[in-house]
Amino acid sequence: MTKWVYGFGDGQAEGTADLKNLLGGKGANLAEMSNLGLPVPPGFTITTEVCTAFYDAGEQYPDDLSVQVDDALTQVEMLAGARFGDASNPLLVSVRSGARASMPGMMDTVLNLGLNDETVAGLAALSGDERFAYDSYRRFIQMYGDVVLGVDHYLFEDLIEDHKHDADVTLDTDLTVDDWKTIVDQFKALVERELGKPFPTDPKEQLWGAISAVFMSWRNDRANTYRRLHNIPEAWGTAVNVQAMVFGNMGEDSATGVTFTRNPSTGENEIYGEYLINAQGEDVVAGIRTPQQLTIKARQAAEDELPSMEEAMPETYAALTGIMGTLETHYRDMQDIEFTVQSGKLWMLQTRSGKRTAAAALKIAVEMASEGVITREEALMRIEAEALDQLLHPTLDPDASRTVITSGLPASPGAASGVVMFDADSAERAAHDGHSVILVRIETSPEDIHGMHASKGILTSRGGMTSHAAVVARGMGRPCVSGAGTLNIDYAAKVLSVGGHQIREGGIITIDGSTGDVMLGPVETIDPVLSDDFQTLMAWADDVRRLKVRANAEIPDDARTARDFGAEGIGLCRTEHMFFESDRIPAVREMILAETETDRRRALAKILPMQRQDFVDLFSIMEGRPVTIRLLDPPLHEFLPRTDAEMEETAKQAGVSVATIRARAHDLHEFNPMLGHRGCRLGISYPEIYEMQARAIFEAMLAMQEDRNQAVVPEIMIPLVGSRRELDILKQHIDGVANELGIAPDRGAYIIGTMIELPRAALMAGDIAETAEFFSFGTNDLTQTTFGLSRDDSGAFLEDYIRGGIFARDPFVSIDKDGVGQLVELAAERGKSARADIKLGICGEHGGDPASIAFCESIGLDYVSCSPYRVPIARLSAAQAALQANEDAAS
Amino acid sequence: MTKWVYGFGDGQAEGTADLKNLLGGKGANLAEMSNLGLPVPPGFTITTEVCTAFYDAGEQYPDDLSVQVDDALTQVEMLAGARFGDASNPLLVSVRSGARASMPGMMDTVLNLGLNDETVAGLAALSGDERFAYDSYRRFIQMYGDVVLGVDHYLFEDLIEDHKHDADVTLDTDLTVDDWKTIVDQFKALVERELGKPFPTDPKEQLWGAISAVFMSWRNDRANTYRRLHNIPEAWGTAVNVQAMVFGNMGEDSATGVTFTRNPSTGENEIYGEYLINAQGEDVVAGIRTPQQLTIKARQAAEDELPSMEEAMPETYAALTGIMGTLETHYRDMQDIEFTVQSGKLWMLQTRSGKRTAAAALKIAVEMASEGVITREEALMRIEAEALDQLLHPTLDPDASRTVITSGLPASPGAASGVVMFDADSAERAAHDGHSVILVRIETSPEDIHGMHASKGILTSRGGMTSHAAVVARGMGRPCVSGAGTLNIDYAAKVLSVGGHQIREGGIITIDGSTGDVMLGPVETIDPVLSDDFQTLMAWADDVRRLKVRANAEIPDDARTARDFGAEGIGLCRTEHMFFESDRIPAVREMILAETETDRRRALAKILPMQRQDFVDLFSIMEGRPVTIRLLDPPLHEFLPRTDAEMEETAKQAGVSVATIRARAHDLHEFNPMLGHRGCRLGISYPEIYEMQARAIFEAMLAMQEDRNQAVVPEIMIPLVGSRRELDILKQHIDGVANELGIAPDRGAYIIGTMIELPRAALMAGDIAETAEFFSFGTNDLTQTTFGLSRDDSGAFLEDYIRGGIFARDPFVSIDKDGVGQLVELAAERGKSARADIKLGICGEHGGDPASIAFCESIGLDYVSCSPYRVPIARLSAAQAALQANEDAAS
Repeated sequence: MTKWVYGFGDGQAEGTADLKNLLGGKGANLAEMSNLGLPVPPGFTITTEVCTAFYDAGEQYPDDLSVQVDDALTQVEMLAGARFGDASNPLLVSVRSGARASMPGMMDTVLNLGLNDETVAGLAALSGDERFAYDSYRRFIQMYGDVVLGVDHYLFEDLIEDHKHDADVTLDTDLTVDDWKTIVDQFKALVERELGKPFPTDPKEQLWGAISAVFMSWRNDRANTYRRLHNIPEAWGTAVNVQAMVFGNMGEDSATGVTFTRNPSTGENEIYGEYLINAQGEDVVAGIRTPQQLTIKARQAAEDELPSMEEAMPETYAALTGIMGTLETHYRDMQDIEFTVQSGKLWMLQTRSGKRTAAAALKIAVEMASEGVITREEALMRIEAEALDQLLHPTLDPDASRTVITSGLPASPGAASGVVMFDADSAERAAHDGHSVILVRIETSPEDIHGMHASKGILTSRGGMTSHAAVVARGMGRPCVSGAGTLNIDYAAKVLSVGGHQIREGGIITIDGSTGDVMLGPVETIDPVLSDDFQTLMAWADDVRRLKVRANAEIPDDARTARDFGAEGIGLCRTEHMFFESDRIPAVREMILAETETDRRRALAKILPMQRQDFVDLFSIMEGRPVTIRLLDPPLHEFLPRTDAEMEETAKQAGVSVATIRARAHDLHEFNPMLGHRGCRLGISYPEIYEMQARAIFEAMLAMQEDRNQAVVPEIMIPLVGSRRELDILKQHIDGVANELGIAPDRGAYIIGTMIELPRAALMAGDIAETAEFFSFGTNDLTQTTFGLSRDDSGAFLEDYIRGGIFARDPFVSIDKDGVGQLVELAAERGKSARADIKLGICGEHGGDPASIAFCESIGLDYVSCSPYRVPIARLSAAQAALQANEDAAS
Repeated sequence: MTKWVYGFGDGQAEGTADLKNLLGGKGANLAEMSNLGLPVPPGFTITTEVCTAFYDAGEQYPDDLSVQVDDALTQVEMLAGARFGDASNPLLVSVRSGARASMPGMMDTVLNLGLNDETVAGLAALSGDERFAYDSYRRFIQMYGDVVLGVDHYLFEDLIEDHKHDADVTLDTDLTVDDWKTIVDQFKALVERELGKPFPTDPKEQLWGAISAVFMSWRNDRANTYRRLHNIPEAWGTAVNVQAMVFGNMGEDSATGVTFTRNPSTGENEIYGEYLINAQGEDVVAGIRTPQQLTIKARQAAEDELPSMEEAMPETYAALTGIMGTLETHYRDMQDIEFTVQSGKLWMLQTRSGKRTAAAALKIAVEMASEGVITREEALMRIEAEALDQLLHPTLDPDASRTVITSGLPASPGAASGVVMFDADSAERAAHDGHSVILVRIETSPEDIHGMHASKGILTSRGGMTSHAAVVARGMGRPCVSGAGTLNIDYAAKVLSVGGHQIREGGIITIDGSTGDVMLGPVETIDPVLSDDFQTLMAWADDVRRLKVRANAEIPDDARTARDFGAEGIGLCRTEHMFFESDRIPAVREMILAETETDRRRALAKILPMQRQDFVDLFSIMEGRPVTIRLLDPPLHEFLPRTDAEMEETAKQAGVSVATIRARAHDLHEFNPMLGHRGCRLGISYPEIYEMQARAIFEAMLAMQEDRNQAVVPEIMIPLVGSRRELDILKQHIDGVANELGIAPDRGAYIIGTMIELPRAALMAGDIAETAEFFSFGTNDLTQTTFGLSRDDSGAFLEDYIRGGIFARDPFVSIDKDGVGQLVELAAERGKSARADIKLGICGEHGGDPASIAFCESIGLDYVSCSPYRVPIARLSAAQAALQANEDAAS
């Protein structure tokens, strides 16, 4: 018989933290906390296998589930000393989802389950607080009605608002027990009206309704979106946790709170949390009331008037901090903890590894490794490489002038400027149209996820540091200012007002998630300063990684940035970027307009000294590190003038008529330029172009030797090769130039290789490696050709493809291992078979993507090359891939 | 010791016909004729291995070659009863090339070698004809000077012309012995002046000079061009044949001629040849004198005045026809024979399989098989499938009015109209610009090959049925009218005049190579009538082939043509061709302009009945044969109006503004439409389009069943699939439509498959075959994506690529087995592994290319699909591929 249900409570449990796949994160940790002897309300977990079985069987439960649930419930009744449905001593339970991976706010939850007209009286008697009991009852009907029965939540809220209006009160807390009783009746009538049947009064019926709602929520739109964004397989399923209720809203000696064992924003080793007296947990997370600080220090820093928990409940606070220490030590990671205090007694409701900013992750990992809590390898594996991106980008220039219009909580660090949008759909559309967007909401909810993802920053007028907006923004690496209470947001008029300023949709603001400041218009930024922790972690990464990391750069500034970020060479210098410089584009156009080889050579001779200087500069910056130079790649028409004014200017410079330029543009026009007369095809048709470039490279190399005594071994890369013969012909030309300059070919003074960016090149790699001394996988073009998919044109349907599950991720962002990966792997194998010491690298955008870097490690490439700002990400990813490979090899 | 030299003559030889690779075609056949006891002048062959060794060693001969040549020469002296360089009894030799494959006129030849001031006197004495001796001597100096020493041949001709002018005579035959003596002196002086050293008088020196010239000519431009056009590897090399001279110019009882054992133009079993009395062989081949007929019948048909050989030399004629019978029986094929009559004695100089027109090849093969000379399988292998193309195309409509301006010899059958061009380069340029060209020359030479290849037809004013123009045109399948003597061609003025008509370069004429007529302007054509021989051969082909042959067709006329040519189904019905019809393009545009799915469905509903009727028509024509229907493939912008007038028209019809249309066109614009929003990507974004098409197919299928009691199993093909998920989604939509119409999916009422036209589709074929019931390889797009090469844009550099040896052939014409072929083979294997009974076909243009069809056979595809006119070619190619596969399996 399959065990579908695992009980916990009273210092023991049937499960452990190791059973996370089966029990979900929440269930496994509740079991683990029970085993640790911590005060956990008793309960049980229905496993993720039930979820899978439920869907596999067409939404039917396993036959023996019901019996196991009954048994577990009996156990909970015994531990809690109360009975489900008992009018005088009722057991109330919460029903919550809990998947293998944390999916905050994605799934539905029901609290206070077990209440009905009889048990509510029992609860009133037991608690001695009738108002609390009926408040709980109306909360239950409201939550259950919304989540389980599908009655729109605003219908319940409208009834409360109407009642408050009639009673002439403003706050919920002003409503009396009689008000709640009336509202309970109205709620039940509402449900019956909406559904045509009464609200269920049988606690067992309520329980199964809630369990089913949780399992069904696994496949709702919110959950699907979250899974897609975080690459969580649908097959994992969710578990359901049923747990005896404890109440933080049972008076002034009750409370509920959320805390982190370290600061999740900065990583500082300090208690970081919030609590609310006389409230239920959902009140903190939803950000409806702005909560109080836990510590005196934090209260002082925030200049808060309300007492901290350390002051208000010193003993319970001491118990809590003790448990926090126990949990962090036990789990060897910063914990995100939910707790409730019921009538002075502390209960632990959840612990899990806390989400954190990249800076915090870095600090925590380095400090824990330095403290000996974790190993350096574990520290490396703890940082999501992609998240480093947050640390590498500009922040606000402290000297830049700014108009701060308000401040909120510094909920997620970093700064962003953008156009104001007031709803998620508009934010997504504006971002799609190329705008930087700041999403401005009163508060956010899971329905806003796609808009938050599309935005550069998030600003809310309500909610604390652990509100939905704050948690999600930190997870996404978006700056966030939350709870900026002076903001007046009018969704209907699409305008926000604050301190006399009015900003309409489309207006520009800047937010600083590190200070909480909100500013009018754009504000200038400066480059980031990298912390010592960052340098420490990078050094550890460099110690363990096998893959070298190079950068794609040709402009001196970029090359310097790359070098400073630790690039070990240049993997892709795109010489065409040099052709567009304003001092040389006239000569480039003259070359294109030339009608004879002689005229072409004359124009090329003008470009030669400039191109030579480019290479001297690059070689100087890179100080002897390898530099791979790709010869001219784009089709010539890309260099021609486009507007009438440019054409006239060019005609004057080149001494030809505008008609001539138009005619040449017409001749050069291509239907599919991506598949046209470009790359080495230009070198075959116009050998003089590549000869000029080779000469510039060699002369720069000689100048470095003579003038600076710096040895340089240029790596000359031929693009768009499809057959060995192309490479042979072009190598002959390049060797010829070398010979003319007294450099012996094939003696290692320079090496010649090729991009592998066409399926045919991958297929013929064995042949091509007979000539090529290195391969650099141009996975951008290889993805375009393998998929038959133009990157520039794919926007029209990419979203359809991701929504339809055809692409798990955009294949231009993360390499398509199934298809494109086959070609890369095959080419690497064939290349190595033909030339054992062939150097293999990747220089497409994938070179900076962690998942793609792991793939490169797995097939044994020698290096990855990425954009300068992604070099640290690549260094860490390469280290993680190496560690993962070691682990896989060991297991 | 390697044997470099093989002797022959006097009824025996060291070689045989089987040693063709070693001795070349000519050498092997000279040996074979010697072994048959036929009168062959003695000689020897220097093998093709010497050619290879010569080039490999940097143009140096093997050490022991010289000794072997000396020995062989001694043997020839003994057999000929004359001595090389002997003043009183000199042996003269010819030195000719002879490669493994026939390369007519491509290589250089030297005759009368061994003459000098001493031996010419001996020749005069022996022949009793001093004028003949000095004529031979001047011919030798002229030929040797041109071919071996590199003195421009016109310099020699100028001297003769000057001398004729001085002597006031018109014809060479009017020149006396003294004239020739003077010219010989002038020739020798010319050579000494041009080269700075005297003409070589030592026969041995002459011999080695000529041998080297032949070997060097293997790599001259003409030979390189010919090899490229005919796919002959450079590594094969040429042999050199040195043979005792016999003289057809030793008076009126001497002659030289060329004959075919059957008519190479029609295939009729009749002697077909020409001869010239008192002439050397080169005179016939070069077409300088218009020759006489061999048979009385032919003389009468041609209304020739000069006597036929049958009349002039009846005994020698009888001997010749006897030998012709012997040779045809021995070689079991129609022979092309060169002979010389010296003073009444017949000598055989060459035999080889004769080049022939497609019609002749067909007739000869079918007749020989019917006669039992060859098997049916041999008959099938004898026809170059590609050549059938000549028979399948329109000929002149006999009822069309025409203005015949002159007539020449019907040298190569078929009719062609085109613009007149007077030189090969202009012809090539005009053809490249898209013109149909008729190349008009006084006579052609090997330098004209590229222009002949680029032209649709060839017209000459000089030369007979075996002239260079005639032989080459027949080989290329180009219509040719030769020897149209009344034409006056002025190269300088670029004008041809005849009977009062003047036609300048660019004017249009029509030639009929089957009648010899030359007509003014274009003339209308009619469809060809296929001979009984054709039908017989096709039936034999059908008996042996394994591959099925289908056609790519969607228009009823094309479908009928395909069916009548023997297509066994439709392999590709491109539904978008139907969308362009004028009655439906408005609705198609309305659909594209629709802003909502509802509007789109409304427009599609208008297209549905028309599309349904298309399929009813197609199913009716194909009478139950399988029909594969590809759903909409091109990007939507292809259907939008382009010109201002069309836009206005469309705006009016669709009830929108021109601005709306422009905006939509702008939205739909793509940078690389080939890689854009097309194929199944449209079906994913707009499922309603494919649903309409599926409905039209199913409704047509039901109508065929109900109205005509004709069962149809449509094959629905999804284009541009890159992953199984796409196919799954679209199959679900199509199955849904079937269900609505009461057709059960997955019961064989219809099948769903996919194009494999993207590298990723090929790589993921195993996965895709889980869903796809058939694969059709779309090798056009697969070639574009695998090479990263746009077919529309490749013209700019394709020529550079073929010249550079990067492409052996245009990969869009003949499949790239090395690269694209790997993907096709891999996909076929993976598809079959996943679904054993998967149907595999090809529907790219390669489906009609013989080499590609052989590849399809080799990897076990089930069918090829090609354009209707290529169906017979595909049927024959498939048969040949099957026979070749059997042979390969047996060996």
